[in-house]
Amino acid sequence: MKALQYRSLGAAPEIVEIETPEPGPGQVRLKVTAAGVCHSDEFIMSLPKDQYVYGLPLTLGHEAAGVVDKIGAGVKHVEEGQSMAVYGPWGCGLCYECSSGRENYCRNAGEYGIAPPGLGAPGAMAEYLVVDSARHLVPLGDLDPVKNVSLTDAGLTPYHAIKGSLEKLHSGSTAVVIGVGGLGHVAIQILRSLTAATVVALDVDKAKLDLAASVGAQYSFPSEAGAVDMIKDLTNGLGVDAVFDFVTVQSTLDLGQAMVRSQGDQVLVGVGSGTLPVGLAATSSWETTIRAPYWGSRTELFEVLELARHGSINVHTEVFSLEKAPEAYEKLKNNQLVGRAVVVP
Amino acid sequence: MKALQYRSLGAAPEIVEIETPEPGPGQVRLKVTAAGVCHSDEFIMSLPKDQYVYGLPLTLGHEAAGVVDKIGAGVKHVEEGQSMAVYGPWGCGLCYECSSGRENYCRNAGEYGIAPPGLGAPGAMAEYLVVDSARHLVPLGDLDPVKNVSLTDAGLTPYHAIKGSLEKLHSGSTAVVIGVGGLGHVAIQILRSLTAATVVALDVDKAKLDLAASVGAQYSFPSEAGAVDMIKDLTNGLGVDAVFDFVTVQSTLDLGQAMVRSQGDQVLVGVGSGTLPVGLAATSSWETTIRAPYWGSRTELFEVLELARHGSINVHTEVFSLEKAPEAYEKLKNNQLVGRAVVVP
Amino acid sequence: MKALQYRSLGAAPEIVEIETPEPGPGQVRLKVTAAGVCHSDEFIMSLPKDQYVYGLPLTLGHEAAGVVDKIGAGVKHVEEGQSMAVYGPWGCGLCYECSSGRENYCRNAGEYGIAPPGLGAPGAMAEYLVVDSARHLVPLGDLDPVKNVSLTDAGLTPYHAIKGSLEKLHSGSTAVVIGVGGLGHVAIQILRSLTAATVVALDVDKAKLDLAASVGAQYSFPSEAGAVDMIKDLTNGLGVDAVFDFVTVQSTLDLGQAMVRSQGDQVLVGVGSGTLPVGLAATSSWETTIRAPYWGSRTELFEVLELARHGSINVHTEVFSLEKAPEAYEKLKNNQLVGRAVVVP
Amino acid sequence: MKALQYRSLGAAPEIVEIETPEPGPGQVRLKVTAAGVCHSDEFIMSLPKDQYVYGLPLTLGHEAAGVVDKIGAGVKHVEEGQSMAVYGPWGCGLCYECSSGRENYCRNAGEYGIAPPGLGAPGAMAEYLVVDSARHLVPLGDLDPVKNVSLTDAGLTPYHAIKGSLEKLHSGSTAVVIGVGGLGHVAIQILRSLTAATVVALDVDKAKLDLAASVGAQYSFPSEAGAVDMIKDLTNGLGVDAVFDFVTVQSTLDLGQAMVRSQGDQVLVGVGSGTLPVGLAATSSWETTIRAPYWGSRTELFEVLELARHGSINVHTEVFSLEKAPEAYEKLKNNQLVGRAVVVP
Repeated sequence: MKALQYRSLGAAPEIVEIETPEPGPGQVRLKVTAAGVCHSDEFIMSLPKDQYVYGLPLTLGHEAAGVVDKIGAGVKHVEEGQSMAVYGPWGCGLCYECSSGRENYCRNAGEYGIAPPGLGAPGAMAEYLVVDSARHLVPLGDLDPVKNVSLTDAGLTPYHAIKGSLEKLHSGSTAVVIGVGGLGHVAIQILRSLTAATVVALDVDKAKLDLAASVGAQYSFPSEAGAVDMIKDLTNGLGVDAVFDFVTVQSTLDLGQAMVRSQGDQVLVGVGSGTLPVGLAATSSWETTIRAPYWGSRTELFEVLELARHGSINVHTEVFSLEKAPEAYEKLKNNQLVGRAVVVP
Repeated sequence: MKALQYRSLGAAPEIVEIETPEPGPGQVRLKVTAAGVCHSDEFIMSLPKDQYVYGLPLTLGHEAAGVVDKIGAGVKHVEEGQSMAVYGPWGCGLCYECSSGRENYCRNAGEYGIAPPGLGAPGAMAEYLVVDSARHLVPLGDLDPVKNVSLTDAGLTPYHAIKGSLEKLHSGSTAVVIGVGGLGHVAIQILRSLTAATVVALDVDKAKLDLAASVGAQYSFPSEAGAVDMIKDLTNGLGVDAVFDFVTVQSTLDLGQAMVRSQGDQVLVGVGSGTLPVGLAATSSWETTIRAPYWGSRTELFEVLELARHGSINVHTEVFSLEKAPEAYEKLKNNQLVGRAVVVP
Repeated sequence: MKALQYRSLGAAPEIVEIETPEPGPGQVRLKVTAAGVCHSDEFIMSLPKDQYVYGLPLTLGHEAAGVVDKIGAGVKHVEEGQSMAVYGPWGCGLCYECSSGRENYCRNAGEYGIAPPGLGAPGAMAEYLVVDSARHLVPLGDLDPVKNVSLTDAGLTPYHAIKGSLEKLHSGSTAVVIGVGGLGHVAIQILRSLTAATVVALDVDKAKLDLAASVGAQYSFPSEAGAVDMIKDLTNGLGVDAVFDFVTVQSTLDLGQAMVRSQGDQVLVGVGSGTLPVGLAATSSWETTIRAPYWGSRTELFEVLELARHGSINVHTEVFSLEKAPEAYEKLKNNQLVGRAVVVP
Repeated sequence: MKALQYRSLGAAPEIVEIETPEPGPGQVRLKVTAAGVCHSDEFIMSLPKDQYVYGLPLTLGHEAAGVVDKIGAGVKHVEEGQSMAVYGPWGCGLCYECSSGRENYCRNAGEYGIAPPGLGAPGAMAEYLVVDSARHLVPLGDLDPVKNVSLTDAGLTPYHAIKGSLEKLHSGSTAVVIGVGGLGHVAIQILRSLTAATVVALDVDKAKLDLAASVGAQYSFPSEAGAVDMIKDLTNGLGVDAVFDFVTVQSTLDLGQAMVRSQGDQVLVGVGSGTLPVGLAATSSWETTIRAPYWGSRTELFEVLELARHGSINVHTEVFSLEKAPEAYEKLKNNQLVGRAVVVP
C-alpha cells in the first residue's frame, strides 16, 4: 500500500510503497477514509536526533478515520464496513487511568512502549491502518469522515481543555481563546455550545480574527498588549475567567497572565516554548489556576463527535490526496493553511 | 400607598390603601417597578384554614423589582436610585446553608419565623416594598425590570433545577421539559444556553408547544403516553438524561418515569399532587435520581440575570397595572395567561 | 474441574465435574483462589421460571479472585502467576458508558447478551474461571485474595453508592447505614475512611450493631421507628445528610424517608421489595435525592482495593471449601452467616 | 481598653490604652476571648513604607474569638453571651463572590476599602473587637476559644487549599505537606480526616517532623532534594497527587515540581518569595495544576469548626496574656514557637 513516511531526520516526508499490515488478535484494520495534518507532526519532524523518540521510518498521521476492513481474532461487536474515528492517545487499557478512559494519561505507556498511531506506531497517512484495539474506535455513523477526522485531535484537545474549566464558565463569565488556528477555531465553537460564557478571540492575523467571528466569538481583538485593557473594559475591570492559550509563546503567556482574573484558569494548550513565572512575587491574582492538559479521554471523544452530529462544530478543512500530502505539510510549515488540512487516500 | 392584599380566606385579593412602610436598620425600601404573578400565589390562596400559614392580611408578590428609595441605618454599598431585583427566599443569613447563599434552604427560617415577601412578609404588589437586608438585592443595571422581574422565581427556580443536573447534560444527552408555562418556557431557554443537550418539550396545549419551539426546543410532543415511544426513538431506545417536570400531577410523573434512562434525573419542580413510586419493584432503570428542588440560591440569581443580560432568556410577559392586578389573578386561575403576568404599580 | 452449579430451578446448587475451560483470544484463565457468596445468588435462585434469565446450568460466583493461569492470544501486559481480582459487571467495553469504566451501566450488555460471571456467564465457584477480557482484572498484589475477594461486590457496591453522595458528606454531616450485613459493615468502614461524617448504624440484630461499632460506627441504634427521634436529637433536629439502605424493605424505606434532611440523599442499595412514595404530597423535605445505584465502575474497584491495601477495610469472612459451598448457601439462606462467606477451591 | 498596636513602621508592636469601640447598626461587639498570632502579621510589619497599606496605628489580630457583648441596631438572631469565632476575610456581602460566601475573593473589597480585622480594620489583640456584620460570626458552642481560635486562619487556610484538591485525593493517592508549622500541622490533620490519601510531611526541622508524625502523617522526610527519590519510591515512581507548600521559597517550589505527578496539584499556600517556572520547556508532567489560594470561605469555616468539634483537629498552642503579646511576636520572629501562639486578653 501507499504511505506517507518520515524517513530520515530533517528530510521532508515522502510517499512510499509498503506492505499492507494484517490485524493480530484484538486488532482491527481500517481502510483509511481521512487523516488529519497536525502541527505536532511538524513539531516532531523538527526535533534534533537526541530528542527524536518516534522511530524511523515513521508513517505519519495521528488523526484518523476509516472503514472497518478486517477484524482480528477475538474482536467482538465491531462489523466490517462500519465508519469509525480513531481515539489516538493509546494506553495500556488496564491501569487506573485507562480504567476511566483517560488513556492520554496511561501510567504504563512509557514503560510498555505504547505510542499513538503516527507518533510512534504506524499512522493513518496510508491506505490502511491497524488499530491496536477495538476500544480505540468510535462509530462515526453518518458523520462525514473528511469533515470530522480532525476532531480526534483538533476537536478533542480543546474539548478536554475546556471541560476542565467548565465549572468556572457559568453565565456572566468570559473565556478567551488565544490563537485561532486548527484547534482554536474549534475551541470557540465548543465554548459556545457548552457554556453561556462570552467568548473573546485573540490572534495576530486579521483573517483568523474574521474566522473567529464567523464561528461564534462575540469579540475578536488583535493579540497584543492593548488587548488587556479591552478585556478589562469588557469585564468591568475584573479580568477573564478562563484563558485557553493555543500558542504558548512568551508573549501569549504574559498576555494571559495579565488578563486572567482571581480564581480564573490559564490553560496552556499549545506546544510553544514560553515559560510562565508563577508565585506571589510574580502574579497579582489569587488562586489563578494554571495547567497544561494533553489530548483527551475516550469519553470526551464520544462527546466531541456528538457536538458535530448536532451541527455545533464545523471544522474548516482543506483536502489533499495522499500523493499531495507532502504539499500539505509544506503549506503547514509556511503557515499557508486556513483551518485544518485533511489527507484522503 | 396602594397594595394588593389577600384579606380573607377564599376571597379574591383586593386593592387597599395601607401605610407606606419605613426601612429599619439594615433594611432597604424599594419603589416597586414590577411584581410577578405566580401560580404559588394562586396555590396558597386555595388552601383551607388549617393549612394556610402566611398570615392575613397578606400583601401578595414574591417576584419583585424596584428602585432603591430609602436606605436603613447601617446599610452600605447600596445607593438610592439603583434598579434592583429581589432575591425572594429569605433566610437568616447566618447559618451553614445561608453562608453559601442557599437561603432557600435556611436552617432557621422556620424557627425564626422568616418568610419570603408575598409569602408571609409583605410582598411587592404595592407601591413600595421593604427588603429585609441589602444582601437580598441584585442590581438589574440596564435590564428592563418589567421584562425580567419574573426571573426572580420563574427564572431562578428552573435555573436551580437545571444546575443540579448539569453534569449529566453533556453533549449527546437529551433533556425533557414537561409543561411549557411560566417556568417551563424559561427552562427551555436556560437548557439551550447552558448545555449542548437536545431539548424536548411536552405539553397538552398546542399553543404552548408552539411557544416551546419558538424559544428553542428542538422537539415538541403532546404530553401523553405516546410521547414515550417518540422519545425512545429519538434516543436510540436509551431514554432521556433529565426530565424537568413543571406539572407533577400523576400522569406527568408516570410519563417521566417511563422515559428517563438509567443514571438519568427526574426532577420534580411543579407543585402538583402526584406521587411517584420508587424502588426496584416499581422502576426499571438503575440509578435514576429523583429530587424536588425549591427555588434557588443567591448566586444562581446573579447567574440567571446574566443570562438575560446576554440575551439568552426572553420571558413572555403580559403587563397589568396594580389596579388591574386582581384581573391578572383571575386570568391565571382560568388558565388564560400566555407566559407570565407582571404587575406594574 | 469441579464447579458449583445451579442446575434446576428451585433446587439447591450442587458440586459437579465439568470440563476445564480454555481462554480464547483476548481472554484470561484464572486458577480461582477465592469466590464470594452473595445474597444476589440466593435472590436469583429464588426466582420463578418466568423471571429467571441467567441460563442453566449456571456456575455460581460473581465475586472472584484468582491467579493468572493461561493467557489467550493477543492479551498483553498480563503475566502468568499474577494474583488478580475480577471486575464483575462486564460490559461491551466499547460504548459511551464503558469508555469511562462504567461497565455496570453498559448500553449494549442486554442486546449483546453480556452477563457477569456467576450471573449468566460461568462464575468463580469452580477451580478455573475464564475472564472475558484482561481489562476486567485488577492486580491484588500482596492483598490476601480470601480476605478481599468480597470487595469486588460487597466492597464495590457500597463504595459506588457512597461516592455518589461524597460531596454532601462534608464535616459536620451525618450518614446512616441501614443493615449491617456483608455490604453494610464494609460501607461503615468506607464512610469512615473517605469522609469526616458521623456514621450511625441501624439494624434489628444486636450482634450486627456490635459489629457496626467494632468497625467504626460512632452510633448504633435498633432499626425501628424510635431511631428517628434519636437521630433528630443527634443532628439538632436537622436529620441526616445521607441514608444508605442495604435492606430496602418497606419499613427501612419509610425510616429513611423520615430521617433524611432537606437536600439529603436516600440511597437504595438493597434488593428488597419496598416502594418509596415520592412527591410533595408524600414527603416533607425539599430536594431530598433518591437513587438506587448498581454495583460500581472499574475505577472504583481500583480505589476500593487501595483502601484495603492501606488497612482501611477489613471484611469479616467465614471460609468454606468448594465441596462445602452448598453449606455456605444453606447458612446464608438461614441467616446464620456473620459477615461474608468465601469459598476457596 | 488595652490593645496591641503596630504604631510606626519597623518598630515592634506595643500595648496601648485606647477607647473601647461601640458597635454601629448591623455590627456586633465581642469581648475577646482569644486572638491568634500569625506569620502574616510579622510579614506586614516587615514591609517598607511603599508597600505597607494597612494604616497606622493598627490594632493587630486577624484570628479572633470572643463573647457577644453588645449588639448594634438591626442585628437579629445573635444573643449576648454567645461564644463566637470570627470569619476574617471580610467582603462587601453583596457581590457575586460574597453571595456564595467566598468573601475572601470579594470583588469590591479593594474599591470599598474593606479590610480584615488586624489587617486594616482594628483587630482582636485588644479587650474588645467590633465585628462589622453578624454574618462574620460562627458560633463556637462548647469549643474552647483558646484552643481553636487559630482555626479561623491556620485551620481555614489549609482547609480551603485542601478542599480545592479533594477530588484528586481518592484512595490510593498521596498528599505532601511541605512545612509543618502553624498551618502545616493542621493541614496534616485535615487531610487525614477528609481523605484516604497517604500523607507525607516534609520539613527541615526534626522537631517539626516529629510533630507531623504525632498528628497523623504516615511518612515524614527531611525537606531536601533526596525527598524526591523517597517519594517516587513510595508511589511506585508515579509522584504525588497533591503538594501543599506552606513555605513557597524557591527550594520548596522546585521540590514540589519535581515530585508532583501528571494531573497532580501543586498548591502554593505560603507567602514565600519563590517563583515557579511553568510551561512545556520547564516541566515534565502533563496537566499538573498550580494555584495559590487565599484564606477560605464562610462555609468552610463552619466545616473546619465541625472537624474540631468531632476531635479531628487539635491545634498545638502556646498561650500569652495580652501584656505578653509583644513577646509572642518576638518568639515568632526568632522561630522559637512550637505550633501556634494565642493571646488571651
